[in-house]
This record gives sequence, C-alpha cells and structure tokens, in this order.
Amino acid sequence: MSRTPLALIAGGGDLPVAVAERCDAEGRAVFVVRLDGFADHRLARWPGQDFGMAKIGAILKAIRAAGCGSVCLAGNVSRPDFKTLAPDLKGATLLPGIIKAATQGDDALLRKILSLFEDEGFGVEGADDILGGETLPPGALGRVKPDEVQLSDLKKALHVAEKSGELDIGQGAVVCDGLVLAVEAQEGTDSMLRRVADLPAELRGEATHRKGALGKAPKPIQDLRVDMPVIGARTMELAAAAGLAGVGGRAGRLILIDRPAVIAAADRLGLYVWGEE
Amino acid sequence: MSRTPLALIAGGGDLPVAVAERCDAEGRAVFVVRLDGFADHRLARWPGQDFGMAKIGAILKAIRAAGCGSVCLAGNVSRPDFKTLAPDLKGATLLPGIIKAATQGDDALLRKILSLFEDEGFGVEGADDILGGETLPPGALGRVKPDEVQLSDLKKALHVAEKSGELDIGQGAVVCDGLVLAVEAQEGTDSMLRRVADLPAELRGEATHRKGALGKAPKPIQDLRVDMPVIGARTMELAAAAGLAGVGGRAGRLILIDRPAVIAAADRLGLYVWGEE
Repeated sequence: MSRTPLALIAGGGDLPVAVAERCDAEGRAVFVVRLDGFADHRLARWPGQDFGMAKIGAILKAIRAAGCGSVCLAGNVSRPDFKTLAPDLKGATLLPGIIKAATQGDDALLRKILSLFEDEGFGVEGADDILGGETLPPGALGRVKPDEVQLSDLKKALHVAEKSGELDIGQGAVVCDGLVLAVEAQEGTDSMLRRVADLPAELRGEATHRKGALGKAPKPIQDLRVDMPVIGARTMELAAAAGLAGVGGRAGRLILIDRPAVIAAADRLGLYVWGEE
Repeated sequence: MSRTPLALIAGGGDLPVAVAERCDAEGRAVFVVRLDGFADHRLARWPGQDFGMAKIGAILKAIRAAGCGSVCLAGNVSRPDFKTLAPDLKGATLLPGIIKAATQGDDALLRKILSLFEDEGFGVEGADDILGGETLPPGALGRVKPDEVQLSDLKKALHVAEKSGELDIGQGAVVCDGLVLAVEAQEGTDSMLRRVADLPAELRGEATHRKGALGKAPKPIQDLRVDMPVIGARTMELAAAAGLAGVGGRAGRLILIDRPAVIAAADRLGLYVWGEE
C-alpha cells in the first residue's frame, strides 16, 4: 500500500498527538490540519496549518499541495454553531448537507464528513489502524485483575455504554454494585468521572475499598476509523479519584493512548484494566 | 375507601412535602417516617419520627400504633452501604432479601420494599394518586408553546429518557438540536441541568435564543405508585439557566410540585412546559 503523507484532521485531545507521533516513528510524513479552537498546541511541531472548521476548500487545497493521498480524522470536536461558521466557497456549497447530517446525530455528521473527503478522491485511514496494536488486548492489561463482582460491574457498564451508543448518546458509563452511577453524553469521560467522585460516598468506592467500573465502548453505529473510544493515564487517575476498581472495554475496540503509561498508572493506583472479549 | 392515617415513608426532595401538604388540605391525618439523612427538615411539622432506614421492625410498630392502614413511599433515597446499616431484629431478617433485590437495580429494590409493607397488611398508595390531578396535562401548561423544532427536541429527549429508563439508569435527558447533551443517572435532574449549563455555549441555547429540551419520563419498569418523575419551579429555573427552551414529560406521568408555581416560573422565564400524549 502506498504511503503518501497523511493528512491528519485534528480535533482536541491526545489521540491526534498519538497518531502524529506514530507517523514519526514509522518515518511517514504527516500534514496536520489543526482545527481552530480544538487542536492541541503540541501539534504545532508537525508541518501543518490552522483552519477554521468550515474552510473546506482551503483544507482540500492545502492537503493536496502537501501530497497527501489519505486523511485521518481524529480527536474531539464540539459541534459548531452552524449559524456563526464562516465557510469558504467550497464550504458554503457543502454546508447545507453537513447541517442536515448534523441534525441526525454525531454519527451521521461524522459519516457525512468522511464521505466528503472520499468524494474528493482521498482515502480514509482510522486512528486505530495507524496506531497498530495499541488497542486493548483481551484480559488483564496490568498487574491487577478484577474479581468476579468487579467484572460483573464492568460487564454492566459496557452493556449500558453500548446501549447508550445505540441511541447515539455516548461511549461510556460507570456502574458500581450493579447500579448505574453515570452515563456519558456531551460532557466527555473526564467530566463524568469527576461527577462520580462528587456523588455521595455511600454510592461508590473509595481508595481503601475500591469498587465500580468505567466501561467504554464504541457506538455500534460508529465509524471505527474515526472515533474509537480511548483511555490514557489521565483516565486511570480520574477513575481512581472516583473510587473505581477499574476500567475496561471490548478487546480490540478501545485505543490506549501511551500503553506503558496506562499500565504504569493502573499498577501504581491499584486499578485493573480489562479487555472483555 | 376508608381513609386511615397515611404513613408517609419520606426520602429527600420536595415530593414528600407536597404529599403531606395535600393530606393536610384534605383533612387527612399523616404520620411521617422521616428517613435519617434524607427527609427534608420541613417534614418536622407533621406527626412522625426519625428512623434509620434499616429499622424496619420499629417503623412497622410505629405506623401501626399511629393507626395507619396504608403507606406512601415518596422521595429520593440514596442506596445505603448495606454493610454499615444497623438493622433491628425485623430488619436483620429481611435484609438479605433486600440486598439481593438491590443488586438487580433501583426498580427491583423498590418493588421489594413495597412488597414488605404489603406482606405486613398495609395498602400502598402512590404519591401521584394522593396528589390527584397534579400531574402534567396534555399540551402546553403555561403561556409558551413549543414550535416544531423545539417539540422535536423534546420528543427525542423523552425517547432517550425512556430508553435509559428501560436500562434502569434514570428518568431524564436533555436534547438540543437533535443532539443528546446529557443523560441523568444517580446525580439527579438538578445536577444534570447544571452540567448542561457548563457545556460550551455553541452546543446549547442561551437566554437570548433558547433551544433544547429537558424530557422526564418514568422508567417503563418503574412502580408509578412510588417514584413518578417530578418537576417544580426550581426545575424551570435550572432549565432556563441551561439555555433550554422548555421542559416536558408524558401527559399524566409527571408530577407537578406546586403547579401554579411551575406555571408562574415558566411564563416568567419564557419556557414552555409540554405534556406529550
């Protein structure tokens, strides 16, 4: 497969940085489309350019000029206020279709944007493919293994995450002693874990007696090439602060941002990381 | 139907106070079982007594002595840490069955507790029955009516609330422009609305351009006699602060705490209150 430079369309969070670092490690050129207001400042060290998210014509022109044959969309992007977007000519042509897709949920919006690039002749690569084996393996990732009760909480959390994914709500849920403590929507996983830490102590675990699980699962309708759920060392820190016993996902369907750091944090904090098959 | 004194088993929030006030208005005697750590201090003005929630023998004895023929469970109760409960003799006998039910979710726990009272010969009355017509009527309750887009958001919010109810997660959801902003679990409606107010402004409405809806629906498996969703004037205040255009539920399946106050708040803030049929 030809390895032209990758056009990395970068939203917020750690995932785009991990993708760019992986390209570096493989000696592959990358051109970063840094979306204004979202892309992490660390992305400034790669060739690239800042773009307003509606400057679609300018983005296409720039990534063609950079010789890119394929794009990777990665990272979180809040939905814009479509009324205040400043599209360029190409963007203005495409915007009505994008807005229509947006009213049908995140997934429809994502698929619409991917199809725009495909219609322009670009390939689409998933962050998960680019990151290779850096997805969650089956079983315990670190030193700690969940006991039967903990695994039962995790399975329920994954079930709730998947069901809420079917409704295009989000990717994550927290369950403790069989009770659903929190479901993630637009606030994101970090915010949800902070909320669990704020719940009454009798509902959740604590450092001396950890219980409960964060489960993250892709939406069943989600295009895995773009927005597979991720966990990183910070996820482990926040899960520990919420008194949880561990974190898990479906094996192969959860991206690990810096796998050694995830394992180190989990082992240090005494949390399990589990890949359910 | 004989109208013996009502034993009001009172958890937190406004609903038990509304029930007790309604009994007063109807000249019916009420004996309030104030659950330690949950019941509102306003309940101290009715005959009653404070009880730890596991003192089941003492509670049964007290409500029999007060001549009560039926009980009404109302208000929120956080799940206890069953290991630190201090049951009396009767409570100790019943606790294993209660704990077993609790692991199956809020609904199973609730049904178990109701059946305990029924097994002891008490009738069970729902807060909604006692509050009579104080449930949400069909259509617009106040001055403001939702437009087509707003109603579409509300319908989606109710759909998500009902689906999450099927999973025994919670009763409420917020949808704006077709996007699920938040789903309620153990944090409660007020906390969820505050979280929506904290989301990026481009995701939600604001006072000058309200959009989005809070929908509250009973869990399909929920015993409506005990825990029908409620809204009050404070719900309207928090919905307004989150930029929402309105609040709604299924007609007849949402309790209004102080209906005139709900209408006054909605009209003053420019929000609709809608009962979907």
